[in-house]
Formats: sequence, structure tokens, C-alpha cells
Amino acid sequence: MFDLPFTLPSLAAAYKSGTSAKDIVEEVYRRIDSIDDPGIFIYLFDKQEVLETAAALGAYDPARPLWGIPFVIKDNIDAGGKPTTAACPAYEYLAEEDAFVVGRLKEAGALVIGKTNLDQFATGLVGVRSPYQPPRNAVDPDIVPGGSSSGSAVAVAHGIVSFSLGTDTAGSGRVPGALNNIVGLKPTLGALSASGVVPACRTLDTISIFALTVEDAYCVFQCAAGYDAADAYSKVVPTPDLSPVPAKLRIGIPDAGSIEFCGDEAQAKSFSDSVALLEAEGAEIVEVDFTPFYDVAHMLYEGAWVAERHSVIEDLMRDAPEAVHPVTRKVVEAALDLSATDAFRGIYRLKELARKTEPVLASLDLLCVPTMPTFYSVADLEADPIGPNSRNGTYTNFVNLLDMCGLAVPVAPRSDGRPGSVTLLAAAGRDSFLASIGSRLEQLGVHKLGATGWTLLAPATLVPAAGADEIALAVCGAHMSGMALNHELTSRGARFLETARTSDAYCLYALAGGPPKRPGLVRGETANGGEIELEIWAMPKTQTGSFLAGIPSPLGLGTLELADGRTVKGFICETAGVRGAENITHLKSWRSFTDSGSIAAAE
Amino acid sequence: MFDLPFTLPSLAAAYKSGTSAKDIVEEVYRRIDSIDDPGIFIYLFDKQEVLETAAALGAYDPARPLWGIPFVIKDNIDAGGKPTTAACPAYEYLAEEDAFVVGRLKEAGALVIGKTNLDQFATGLVGVRSPYQPPRNAVDPDIVPGGSSSGSAVAVAHGIVSFSLGTDTAGSGRVPGALNNIVGLKPTLGALSASGVVPACRTLDTISIFALTVEDAYCVFQCAAGYDAADAYSKVVPTPDLSPVPAKLRIGIPDAGSIEFCGDEAQAKSFSDSVALLEAEGAEIVEVDFTPFYDVAHMLYEGAWVAERHSVIEDLMRDAPEAVHPVTRKVVEAALDLSATDAFRGIYRLKELARKTEPVLASLDLLCVPTMPTFYSVADLEADPIGPNSRNGTYTNFVNLLDMCGLAVPVAPRSDGRPGSVTLLAAAGRDSFLASIGSRLEQLGVHKLGATGWTLLAPATLVPAAGADEIALAVCGAHMSGMALNHELTSRGARFLETARTSDAYCLYALAGGPPKRPGLVRGETANGGEIELEIWAMPKTQTGSFLAGIPSPLGLGTLELADGRTVKGFICETAGVRGAENITHLKSWRSFTDSGSIAAAE
Repeated sequence: MFDLPFTLPSLAAAYKSGTSAKDIVEEVYRRIDSIDDPGIFIYLFDKQEVLETAAALGAYDPARPLWGIPFVIKDNIDAGGKPTTAACPAYEYLAEEDAFVVGRLKEAGALVIGKTNLDQFATGLVGVRSPYQPPRNAVDPDIVPGGSSSGSAVAVAHGIVSFSLGTDTAGSGRVPGALNNIVGLKPTLGALSASGVVPACRTLDTISIFALTVEDAYCVFQCAAGYDAADAYSKVVPTPDLSPVPAKLRIGIPDAGSIEFCGDEAQAKSFSDSVALLEAEGAEIVEVDFTPFYDVAHMLYEGAWVAERHSVIEDLMRDAPEAVHPVTRKVVEAALDLSATDAFRGIYRLKELARKTEPVLASLDLLCVPTMPTFYSVADLEADPIGPNSRNGTYTNFVNLLDMCGLAVPVAPRSDGRPGSVTLLAAAGRDSFLASIGSRLEQLGVHKLGATGWTLLAPATLVPAAGADEIALAVCGAHMSGMALNHELTSRGARFLETARTSDAYCLYALAGGPPKRPGLVRGETANGGEIELEIWAMPKTQTGSFLAGIPSPLGLGTLELADGRTVKGFICETAGVRGAENITHLKSWRSFTDSGSIAAAE
Repeated sequence: MFDLPFTLPSLAAAYKSGTSAKDIVEEVYRRIDSIDDPGIFIYLFDKQEVLETAAALGAYDPARPLWGIPFVIKDNIDAGGKPTTAACPAYEYLAEEDAFVVGRLKEAGALVIGKTNLDQFATGLVGVRSPYQPPRNAVDPDIVPGGSSSGSAVAVAHGIVSFSLGTDTAGSGRVPGALNNIVGLKPTLGALSASGVVPACRTLDTISIFALTVEDAYCVFQCAAGYDAADAYSKVVPTPDLSPVPAKLRIGIPDAGSIEFCGDEAQAKSFSDSVALLEAEGAEIVEVDFTPFYDVAHMLYEGAWVAERHSVIEDLMRDAPEAVHPVTRKVVEAALDLSATDAFRGIYRLKELARKTEPVLASLDLLCVPTMPTFYSVADLEADPIGPNSRNGTYTNFVNLLDMCGLAVPVAPRSDGRPGSVTLLAAAGRDSFLASIGSRLEQLGVHKLGATGWTLLAPATLVPAAGADEIALAVCGAHMSGMALNHELTSRGARFLETARTSDAYCLYALAGGPPKRPGLVRGETANGGEIELEIWAMPKTQTGSFLAGIPSPLGLGTLELADGRTVKGFICETAGVRGAENITHLKSWRSFTDSGSIAAAE
């Protein structure tokens, strides 16, 4: 039993073959005893209580995606009837009810085991800023466990539970993932309700998810996401199923002048190896000057946002300052010198910096960065509690300020055996897209899961299909991946399904007019044309009207025949529109046509 | 000439019939002399200079929508080469270039005449907080001119210029409109670039437009709107043409418990008369508790946002406080006591209050409110410079904090002869929708324009058009009214716009197969086909995807040419699909075909 991987598919298989939830709960507590790290939990639930909850689940129900799945909660998130401390005993209160997200996970069948240690008030990226004994890093006890969600990351890395909840404002859901060789999913702001969460920076906080695999983390995210009218910052964020990775991704990485490893050659090598894996998969790697992103990052602690942290503990700081961890106090005290005028100036500056990053992000599908520049030991932090912490946030601090989603993905171990990790970043709402790519990447970067000996299994085969709320649309021109109008799909939440070819009844034309040149796909007689390259994308049906509104004559959306006999909605062209057009059917691909010289081409 | 109304259609007609721009400029300066109010302008351009600019326009060009149209600019907006003061001589600077919006208006052919007086730093709703002599109210010199855009409103009300630019943070683009019997268009935040504008509250500011009629104001708005990458707060906001008012509007008004007229019975009567006009047009009036809106309003000056004003003049307030108007100073000084923590707490509270107003707004098409509760005299303001100013903002202060667009519309004069005005409010981006309704309302509430004797002419006939959230779709078969598939439109919330005909380039086929028989509309050579009967429906864009999903091959949605030269999205048919079809172009209508015998016919 001790060898049973606690990934979701592994546990589901065990449950299907007769293992009881009680068995798994017993195993959780055996593992806790065996790991013997008293720093992980601030409040471990009584085993008997969890066994009773497990019994109340009844018979295994595969319709509940998290049935019998054990998880732990960072102790700044409420579990009903239990204390919440945010790692500050003086702040402790008894939570009346579950946090909104915890409630959703329990509805999906998951079992809470306990409340985990953290950098006090979620202020830190190291995991040692806690009055409770900090947890040991699961992979290497010399290095810090990472924070602020330290206990949640370590518990998952040891395979004690299948997943855990952290929170992430500056990187607290990503850095500890990287330091413990697990996945850290940092959702789009507002996707996971903050009801029942102790705020750090309320405008920038989100609950985050740790798991051993990207698929597991994303499944938990799908269960946890949902609009909460009681949380003023809650939003509806799409959570479609994972889908195959588009062929032609444009991935931005920090350029040579702006990439930072603090002298850690092994980290530099690990990152460039990961980038090479993505490139080998067909991605176009674009080097980007990260200066504007770092400028944003600096605002988090050096700008006015520290006042958000102050707003949470103002009374405590005034009435019982000694109750606050000395490093936390020093960080948050900076707010006392900040005026409302400073706050608004900071907000203006952020808006201006964001405007500078917008064109960079718009030209790319995603960013890929090291999760952090290097590793720090517990001793490093004892010598300097601030500097290493700040450097840990190099690639994380700007993310929530720019309202991006992020995913820390374990890759192959570094040359010295320490865990490899990169973080994928994309615009708000693209959590599914990131997880689809992350799932592919973790397969490429072969590694053991967390601190366990378990290996990553092949992911479930992803069937490229549009969901009930989507329409599959075939595109044949500049809407394809990596081309000029692809953003008209991705900005509407469309996701790549597959490449395909038309039946041989189609002629492809480069229409008269332009620039930009536009393709026209005209159906004629069978076998009189060619099999033309298509990409099929799944677009939310609600977005199709605005997409149609922008399609110019003679193009339209109709029904295409595919080479394999299927039909799909997609771009058609009126025959009357091909007057003066160049027949490029022989090229069989708009991409070939544009590669061959005509530069400014649009759908 | 003095009687020539300076509305856009009136001036366009004059230009068409040979009047020169020079004539109009001469007339502008004659009117300025005749009105003899030195309080209007802080900086009046030299007539000779404007005459030269007018001469440089060349021959009348109807393609430039504002060709030869005179306008004035509130003196917190830059005109290149001229001083900007924001009504504070100590703050004066020489503007190097035109504000972005001023530049766009000049590109459209408009002629700047001067820079107008305002409540200093745009802080106020009264127009008397200026070290320059305040302008007289154009309608009644006893009452305040309104502010902060005082000079801009008064200049338009006198018919000196056709339109003017104000700014609006708390109501400065609406209240002076109401007080001077003119239109005040307060756009969606970000629609008009703030480049070259002295900020008041940078997160809440917008340039606003005063004009004598809603149509004029909206035309100027269309010319002025445009994305400006240099303004971090600039956004792309749709500016479709005005369209007929939908029949069934749900309009929210303050309920009896929350409506406020400060005891002014004439204002109460004027407002209920306006509401009755809307109800008689078919609108459903919904009484709404305005308490959450007032709670938002109070945050503008009582909350942290006053620190935004402070950020603009911090140096001046510290180094030369006497240079700031004493009332303005008192208002802005409140920022000195506000911490960054206070600022973020205010931001949280606004977010929570906005969450309370969201369901109210989501259940309505728009709100209709009095523009202000009552009128105050110059003497009232001398007695109490703060209280009446605050009360003027009752129905305006919450609007920008909630990112709504607003339109102050003159209605019939009150029983005591003072101007009647209501303000229409809707969600961000619905500026065109509001202006369409406002244009109808100003027609119903018969009145003279501003302080002139000019009367409102019938508006240009509005072409029935889809709203910003809709797509106009032409149908030619069983989707037409009363036919078998019409429910596929109505069940999706589509609304009928008009009947129309295609250009004569289309052939209509009864496609092979069926029953049901289906029509195919195929574009060919001009004049080789017939003008085919269509119906145009406006469908919510969110519904178009599910509609498209049900359209079978060889039909699709593309772009149709109409007989009158317009184009519209609608049903097209692939040429390859007409094999074996019956050409019924001579019938010019699917309805005629089905009436003639073929019974079960579908689109």
C-alpha cells in the first residue's frame, strides 16, 4: 500500500478495484508518521474524524471527480469548525464554515486532512518565516522548503496527499512547487473564490493548487473554480478540458540581457534544456527583454501594495507588534510611510508598465521562465532573511500584478540532482491552454514525482473535440497557429483541436486585393481540387457572433468536407469572390503560400 | 447670419450652399462680442489665427464630418502652442502639442476657438471655483453656470460654437449641461484618450462632449474616440451609428424612498413627466433602491479618491498653497490624512459596493435619473461653497466609479422656466445605445436649444441597426417572419429590424433534396441576378454560434450586398451546392416560391 501513488488516476483505479476510502485515510496517516516532519501541519485533523467523513462518502462514486481524494489546506484558508492562524497564533480565529473553494472540493468528494504551515500571513517565498517549526524541503533538507505555501507543497511532494491548496500573491503557489519538484497551478485572478481566505494583497491574491502532475492539478482546478457572488473579486473564468497542444506556439523567454540565474549555472542549463524541448516540439522561441516585467515585479514590495498586507493586520501591528514575525513586521511596516497619494501613483505606474508589456504578450502565445533563478539554503536565509526571498520572486512577482495565469511545471532534475522547474505564463483566462502545454512539457522532462519514487504515467489520450458550449471551426489562413490573426481565436477563448485537410474538392485562392492577402477556400467538384491544410479550433459558441461580425466578404462560415469524410464548420468563400484571384491549390496550404513570399496575409 | 443655428446639420447645409468657413469664424467672434461674458474664456484664440486655419481647410469636404465646425476646449485640455492653466495661473504651462482628442477633432475638420473656464483643477460641479471671473449661466444668470466644465457648457448654450470639450470625473460633463439646457455626453472611461489632459482623478477621468443636440454630441464622440497606446487608460470602445430605439426597454429610476430633489417640486414634476414620456413610448419603468449607488457616490470625495487629485498638485499645495483656490485646497487637503492602507480599503469597499449594483444593472437596459436634484444660485454658493456642490453630484458622483456611460439630455423646461434635464446611464461600452435613446427623448421633450431661440429639428431617419452586442443577419428563407424556422431567431432573442432586398447580383435557388426545400442565395455578376427579398434581424452575438452550428451545407453565413449599397451578414450558399437546384430568381422571394406550391420549405 505504501507504494500506491496518490495521483488521481492511481487512486481512482484503486477505488474501482475495491480499496476503501478508509484504507486510504489510514495510509495518509501512516505516511504522515513515516515522514515525521512536524513542520508540515499547523493543525492536523484527528484521524478518527477523517475516517468518519470518509465513511460518510458511501460507495465509490466515479461521478464525483475527487471521491476519496485526500488533500490539505494552507492555514490561511478556512475549514469549518477549525482554527485558522495564518501562522500567527495571536491572529487565530475559529472558522465558522468552509472557504468557498474548500466547500466545492468536498462536494466533489475530496477529504481534508489538515491545515498546513506557511510564511506568516502569506508574506514570503521561503517557508521559514513562521513561528511554527518550518517544514523540511521534501527533496533536500538543506534548501528552504519554499513559501509562503510551504506545508502544502511539502505534503504533496511526499505523497501524503494527492493535492493541496496554497495561495499565491507574489509566487507562493509556484516557488514552493519548484523547490519540492511538484506542480504549482496559479489560476487567473478571480477564478477561485477568496471567500474564507485571509487576504495578503486582496487585489492580487488567489488560491493555488499543488499536485504531482499537471492533469491532477487541472482537474482540481476545474472542481474548485466557480463564481461566488459573495466575493467581490470573483469572476467567471472558462475551464474547458485540456486539449492537444497547437503545433506552432510562439513562446517568449527572457533574453540574454535580462535573464537572471544569480550565477547558478546548473539552473541556467536546466532552463535552456527545457526551452530546447519546447523548440523540438515545434515551438518558435522568441527572446524578450524582461525589463518591463521586472519593473512591474519591483512594485509588489517596493510600491504601495504592501499597504494591502498592512490593511489585514493593522490592529495587530499597532496593539501587539511582537506577535508578528520580525521579518514579516519589517516588510509590512513599510506601509506606514505610504500615503494614499503614493498608492494611486503606484496604481498609475503599474497601468503604464502593463501597457508596455501588452504588445509583448499580444505577440506571443505564452511566456516560459525559470520558476526561480537559483536555490537558497536554510542557512542563507538565516544570514539574510530578505535578499534571497526577493530573488526567489524574480520570475513570479510580476504575474498577479499583470493578471496573468501561471503554471510551475517540474522538468528533469538538474545536473546536481536538484529539481528542475519552469513556469509557463499566459494572459488571464488561459488556464486550460497553459495546463495543456504544461501536461505535454512534464512528459518531455522525465522525472520522479515530488520526493517520491513514483514516475509519471502517460497522460490520458486527449480527444480533440469541441465541448457542448463550443463550436469546432476550421480555419485555413492567417487564423492558424503562429499567424497574424490567430489572436482573434485565442482572445475569444478558442482552443486548438487538431490539424486536418479538406477533401480533394476544394480550390485555394489568394484573393485579389490587400495587403493583407486573404485566402479563399472554394468547394468545386470532387478530385478537381486539392486537400488543403486546415486547423480546427474549438470556439465558445458565445464568441462566434463577434468573430463572424469581423469576417469580410467574400468569406463566410459554412460547412467544410474533410479528407477523412467528416464535416466541420469553417471558412468558405463565395465563388463570385475569386475574380482576379490567384489559384494556389497546388501549394495545398496558406502557410506555404505566405512562406513563399507574400508577406502580409490575413484570413 | 446671426440666426444660423450652429448645429452640425445646419452648418453642413450652409457650407454646402456656399457659406465659407471664414464666414462662420467671423460669426463666432461676432457672437462672442454680442454675448459679452468675459468669464467664458481663459484663453480666446486670436481671430486672425483661426481665420488662417479656416482658410487652410480648403474647399468644403463633406467627407470630413466636422469640416469647419467651431469648438472650444476646457482649459485642462491641451491645444498645441497654447497655455493650459486648469484655472490655476501658478500651474500654467505651454502645451507642446494638441491633446490626442483635439488632434482627432481637427483631423475631422473642426476649428478650435479657445480655452474655457472651469472649476480649478476640475474640482467642483458649480463653475464658481475659479480665480478667473466665472461665466454667467447662459439661461439664467442667477443660477450657477455649473461645473467644472463651466465655460465649455455656456459657450455651447449660447450657440457661440457647435460643441465643446469638457472633462467629467464626478459629473463635470453632465451637471453644466443640465444647468445650461444642452446635451452632456459622458463617455465610457477610456473611449477618449486622456493624453494631453490635466488629470483630476486619473482612474476616473474622461473627456466629455457638450452639444446642442444628442446627434451632434454623438457625431463628435465618434470622431474623437480612438485607441491611444500612449494613454495607459485608453480602451477600444465601440462607436456604431445610432439606431432606432428598441420597443421594450426596461428603465430603472430611483424609487420613492431614495429619490432626492432637496424639496424642489418643479424638479420632481419635470422628472416624472420625462419618465412618463418614456413609459408612453413602451418602456417598462422599474423603481430601484438607489442606496447602493449613493454609497458609491460618497466614496468619491469622502473616500480615498481625493488623493488622486492631490497627486496632481502635491508640489503646488506644499510650495505655494495660496496659489490654489481656497475651496479647492480645502477639498484636496483631505488627502493629507489618508494612508495607502486607507486607499486600498476604499478600493475594496468600492468593489464590494459595485458587486451590489451589478445585479440591479444586469436586470435593466438603462437607468434614468434627474441630472441633479435642484438648482443653486450664485448666492447659495457664496453662503456655502461645499454643500450645494455635493448635492449637485447626487446623481453623477457614482457613475465613473462604476464605469458606466452617461448622457445628460435636455427635456421640456420646468414649470418655472428653468431647463429640464434627465441623465441616462448604462454599462460601459453602451454609449451608442444611450445616445439612440437620448435622441428619441430630446425629441419628445420639446425645448429650445441651449439659451438660443433655435428649435430641435427632426433627427435624421435612423437606419434600423443592430446594437453593439448584436449582429445584423439577413435571412431569405424559412427564417423570415411567420415562416417555419422563424422561431430559431426569436428563441435566440433576435429582433426584427427591417425588410430589404439584395443587390441585383444574386440568384435564388430552390436547392435539390428535401423536403423541406431550402433556398440558396448565390452571388454572381452584377445585374445578372435579381433583387431578392430579405429580412434583417438583430441577433445577440452570443447566440450566433449555436445558430451557425445548425446551418447545413451548402449554406453558410457571409456578407450580402443590399440593393441600397449597404452590406450585411446573412445567408450565403456555396456555388457547388446548387447542382440540381431550381433557379427561382424570377420570383425574387422565397415566400413567393412557397406560396406558389412547394409547402415544406426551410432556410
